[in-house]
Amino acid sequence: MGNDAYALKGIIVCTPDFNTIEYHENEYVICENRKSRGVFKELPKEYEGIPVIDYKDKFIIPGMCDMHLHAPQYGFRGIGMLLDSDSEWETWFDTYSFPEESRYFDLTYADKAYGRFVDDLLTNTTTTRACVFATIHRPATELLMRKMADAGFSAYVGKLNMDRNSRYGLQETTKESLTETKRWIEETMNGYGAIKPILTPRYTPTCTDECMEGLGKLSVWYHLPVQSHLSEGLDEIEWVKKLKPQISCYGEAYDQYGLLGSSEPSLMAHVVHPTDVEFELLTRRNVMVAHCPQSNMNAAGGVAPILDMVGAGIKVGLGTDMAGGCNLSLMRAMTDAIQASKLRWVYTKRNGDPFAKKQFLTVANAFYLATKGGGTFFGNVGSFEKDYEFDAVVLDDAPLADFILRSVSDRFQRVLWRHNEDTIHAKYIQGKEVYLKK
Amino acid sequence: MGNDAYALKGIIVCTPDFNTIEYHENEYVICENRKSRGVFKELPKEYEGIPVIDYKDKFIIPGMCDMHLHAPQYGFRGIGMLLDSDSEWETWFDTYSFPEESRYFDLTYADKAYGRFVDDLLTNTTTTRACVFATIHRPATELLMRKMADAGFSAYVGKLNMDRNSRYGLQETTKESLTETKRWIEETMNGYGAIKPILTPRYTPTCTDECMEGLGKLSVWYHLPVQSHLSEGLDEIEWVKKLKPQISCYGEAYDQYGLLGSSEPSLMAHVVHPTDVEFELLTRRNVMVAHCPQSNMNAAGGVAPILDMVGAGIKVGLGTDMAGGCNLSLMRAMTDAIQASKLRWVYTKRNGDPFAKKQFLTVANAFYLATKGGGTFFGNVGSFEKDYEFDAVVLDDAPLADFILRSVSDRFQRVLWRHNEDTIHAKYIQGKEVYLKK
Repeated sequence: MGNDAYALKGIIVCTPDFNTIEYHENEYVICENRKSRGVFKELPKEYEGIPVIDYKDKFIIPGMCDMHLHAPQYGFRGIGMLLDSDSEWETWFDTYSFPEESRYFDLTYADKAYGRFVDDLLTNTTTTRACVFATIHRPATELLMRKMADAGFSAYVGKLNMDRNSRYGLQETTKESLTETKRWIEETMNGYGAIKPILTPRYTPTCTDECMEGLGKLSVWYHLPVQSHLSEGLDEIEWVKKLKPQISCYGEAYDQYGLLGSSEPSLMAHVVHPTDVEFELLTRRNVMVAHCPQSNMNAAGGVAPILDMVGAGIKVGLGTDMAGGCNLSLMRAMTDAIQASKLRWVYTKRNGDPFAKKQFLTVANAFYLATKGGGTFFGNVGSFEKDYEFDAVVLDDAPLADFILRSVSDRFQRVLWRHNEDTIHAKYIQGKEVYLKK
Repeated sequence: MGNDAYALKGIIVCTPDFNTIEYHENEYVICENRKSRGVFKELPKEYEGIPVIDYKDKFIIPGMCDMHLHAPQYGFRGIGMLLDSDSEWETWFDTYSFPEESRYFDLTYADKAYGRFVDDLLTNTTTTRACVFATIHRPATELLMRKMADAGFSAYVGKLNMDRNSRYGLQETTKESLTETKRWIEETMNGYGAIKPILTPRYTPTCTDECMEGLGKLSVWYHLPVQSHLSEGLDEIEWVKKLKPQISCYGEAYDQYGLLGSSEPSLMAHVVHPTDVEFELLTRRNVMVAHCPQSNMNAAGGVAPILDMVGAGIKVGLGTDMAGGCNLSLMRAMTDAIQASKLRWVYTKRNGDPFAKKQFLTVANAFYLATKGGGTFFGNVGSFEKDYEFDAVVLDDAPLADFILRSVSDRFQRVLWRHNEDTIHAKYIQGKEVYLKK
């Protein structure tokens, strides 16, 4: 037994698989050497006497993984949500995203803005892991990585590549883009705690073939995973068809340069409109999809076919897509995912049948996506099973209680749907307490 | 000029019509005799010297109207949101709604639970007007009306009628139902401040024809408006078809007893699945629809055709449908309505066309529904136009500010999407300040 072993006691919530959720009341989850030893009704003999933090009637859940968010867009969260009837999605880039991202050339601004982002990520939501898009700027990206490391996060962060179709000083030359990326990798692959670089071509329209080819080589050379956007909007898909008329599906634009999981793991955000060919390619390449339901609603894109994906063996995690979505909370992402999947079912499968079999995400499904689903991208993450990295969040639903004794599963639903800052009690990442409510 | 005249100064937001939103910075809205005198760039000569509360950079908006909510369901808000794949909507009634509503037989419980509901309605949301469902219990309904009156609300509250297909002690005999309703009307039609009774047959499956007929007579005799549920779920619609095989549409089940606007105003919640016949009937009877987007998503019902309704001249307001929806906030209802309308567009009109004309609710549309749209049910309510009743909410978006100066319209979007308790600064109902943030 390691000297650092300790246990948390409370209502431990687990999703061993996509369709199962378990509530273990008054049980223990043991952390040793930053790993989970599992969930126990009583402390096993060899762990008797270890420190126990008794959270009593509070929920203890595996840490949640935000599989897609743009840290530099945090400043305009809640703005540009509308896409009014006369404007196209591209105007969002010109009006909000690009002007805001261009400010991260300035490290003073980056320091303020990323400072607030990291503070809020720590205190306001259940996030313990994240896959983050930064901007094209290497220095500001390194600053973000430093801040996230100091706050105790374990995450992938990506300096973006954009060597075409960009504006507001955000366009790099291909050479610059690759040189800066290489330098950034060298500078950050060690020395930023649990914050690691991930290759991040923004998406096909902003990356030339030459840039993609270079990134493919860097991925192999440094064994780096890749994140990007895929099949988010119908207009974007049309654009990619024009840019790359020879490919069979959008996903192939990444795959042809080894950026879609053929060598290193690949994480693709959205995939709202996969073609059959793309669906097959994602399955074959073992790509993880980052499902971002709120953003896809805001963008009037639609709802990704998550149940079909999971059924086909495609790995899926949840993302907030800050600031296409405007909430950092993964519990909000869960409830958004459930609501969106209901409307998808109504409009694509139900066809007006009053007694049609219901096919939408359950609480177990959504909770799995938010924890173990995304967690697999980081290794053994997102569960309290033995040898999983020990990430945990303690939820206090006392502020939400009414006058009636509710079942544990009802209380868990309520804390998902009605959570606020008051309900996030504590957060552990890799065995270390990084946040405790004052 | 009345002695009680005063003005609020700040950023005054108005929706003169469904498609227009205006921001009047540094302007005045004048209240006199509990009515608005209009919005002015400078105080008119006859009002010089009246007290001015200068809210400076805060938003001043017309009060919002929650056109459909169940006060006794507030206790289980956030619970029963799921409807897991194996259960039907009816189980929600048996598991959550009916057992909770049966508790309001007990006035001690009602006092606690309604007390909390009214406190939260006052402080947590922007609601100034509401159309509320209580339970079948006359004493508890009167208690709720007293509490809402004491808090300063102006609202319609309904004692429910349920004389068939009910459980948990919630079923009345037809005679009881009508006798108690008559007594309740007599006791509450005067003497509860701005809280007025509204006839509330729960819905066709819980009300016999005899009960409906009696309510129709009470409506005419006492000049009382009517609220109920209409065409919410496909299974409910099938049930009504079985119960009333002779009618041409669900709406006719109310109309045949004069409960659908033929004599007194009628407010119908949901109307997610109107048939052509029903659509025409609603238009002809000048019925108001209470659109409850979050509840309709949670129930996997779908999205009501709001743009079609408004286009056909049907009046529409917004409702939270607490606890089919779990948020009391009408700003959340606005953003839910926008998101839901986007998915409706994607799945019923867009048909995969990348460049299809966008047809979904804008901020102006949603804001109109939440204010003037619902407000017309109360008379001249929901606007700062001359002679409208003076309801106002002051929103402080300073807690949401980032490091960049944002336009007023962007700031208004942000406060809609990211509002919380901190952003509700003050609330006025009928000229009286009922809430001021501490």
